[in-house]
Amino acid sequence: MGWKPVTKVAGTFGTAEGSTPLNAFDNALLAAGIGNINLIKVSSILPPEVPVVELPKIKPGALIPTAYAAITSEVPGETVAAAVGYAIPDDPAKNGVIMEFHGHATRAEAERQIELMLEEAFRVRGEAIREMKVVSAEHTVERIGCALAAITLLTEEDLL
Amino acid sequence: MGWKPVTKVAGTFGTAEGSTPLNAFDNALLAAGIGNINLIKVSSILPPEVPVVELPKIKPGALIPTAYAAITSEVPGETVAAAVGYAIPDDPAKNGVIMEFHGHATRAEAERQIELMLEEAFRVRGEAIREMKVVSAEHTVERIGCALAAITLLTEEDLL
Amino acid sequence: MGWKPVTKVAGTFGTAEGSTPLNAFDNALLAAGIGNINLIKVSSILPPEVPVVELPKIKPGALIPTAYAAITSEVPGETVAAAVGYAIPDDPAKNGVIMEFHGHATRAEAERQIELMLEEAFRVRGEAIREMKVVSAEHTVERIGCALAAITLLTEEDLL
Repeated sequence: MGWKPVTKVAGTFGTAEGSTPLNAFDNALLAAGIGNINLIKVSSILPPEVPVVELPKIKPGALIPTAYAAITSEVPGETVAAAVGYAIPDDPAKNGVIMEFHGHATRAEAERQIELMLEEAFRVRGEAIREMKVVSAEHTVERIGCALAAITLLTEEDLL
Repeated sequence: MGWKPVTKVAGTFGTAEGSTPLNAFDNALLAAGIGNINLIKVSSILPPEVPVVELPKIKPGALIPTAYAAITSEVPGETVAAAVGYAIPDDPAKNGVIMEFHGHATRAEAERQIELMLEEAFRVRGEAIREMKVVSAEHTVERIGCALAAITLLTEEDLL
Repeated sequence: MGWKPVTKVAGTFGTAEGSTPLNAFDNALLAAGIGNINLIKVSSILPPEVPVVELPKIKPGALIPTAYAAITSEVPGETVAAAVGYAIPDDPAKNGVIMEFHGHATRAEAERQIELMLEEAFRVRGEAIREMKVVSAEHTVERIGCALAAITLLTEEDLL
């Protein structure tokens, strides 16, 4: 592919307050450990045979294809949640699928939505799910808050 | 360019129902033949001298720069349409332009919008259009439906 | 990184009218000197030790990671503004941060927002700002207008 091949994927999540919505998002990215890289939003497939790892140290400023869900709210007291999940098929030559959810919801509701979406994604592809995992974040807003969850698609050169 | 050079472009379109908006989108991508790749949204130029081909087989999980238009609706009976089109200039050294449209419209209306937008894009660039093509999709929603149209920017390593 | 390393960054801005919102955006990109490239939206870090330069000539159709803010309005008489700014830390090994703003605002208001957001971004990172710069655009709509500001992340192969 035009990009160097994706060799690892890692999920993460974070929540934060900020004095503006964009700062709340930036602070949530920092809380998630991905605040000093460039996210490029992708829609949203797990390449075949790529291991899922703990979030490694990524070079600052690296351009990282990432499937992510985020929600920012300026309504004090409101609970928001973001979740991303992946499912991997039985057949290792086939790709996995990533689904995203964000909304005025609890973490449990967000996770349930992801599971239902992944189940449909596999049913329509005619594949059986070998493994499914969801990362999610829930935040009750104080002033301006953000919840985000992300799955980063990494290549060796991105890593410190 | 940072990416490997784009060597082919291909248009496609699809429509589908799903049990959530994101599944409807995923299902429409599958119907379009691009459901197992990672789309990276671009805004939206056809590089010079790149041939337009039938959609080839793309490696699962590949990261593909794509100009796309999509609309999802949860209003049964509503007709939605998405279209993308490109125009190529007389001068082969100059780039083409891609325009996107989505809305509560028919396919014919979507296509007409694309044509008008491409004509303006070439008028302001002072270029004559040598060739124009629009790909489009129309869908009347049953429960939760999606229409999408896309032009993928491909490099040889993306292909199977 | 998967991408070739970013070796230069350049800011730019533009405003324009168009006969549709997408044409107004396209025309504003042309006014900004980035109308014939593919923008890939990034969120939004300045890699360490990358010089900021005047916008160079970029290959038509190149795929350029870009942090940008844009606003289109169809309300005649309305004033809209877009701004992006970066701040660079004292420590040259650390990355800079880019912030975006768009809204129904003046250019001065947009710039002030960027400054406040950058100050918070550095405060939470525990870094001191060595240099800060904002590029911004303001437009009072005639019929359908767009204001945009952008910071492009460039690699040598993108340049003419």
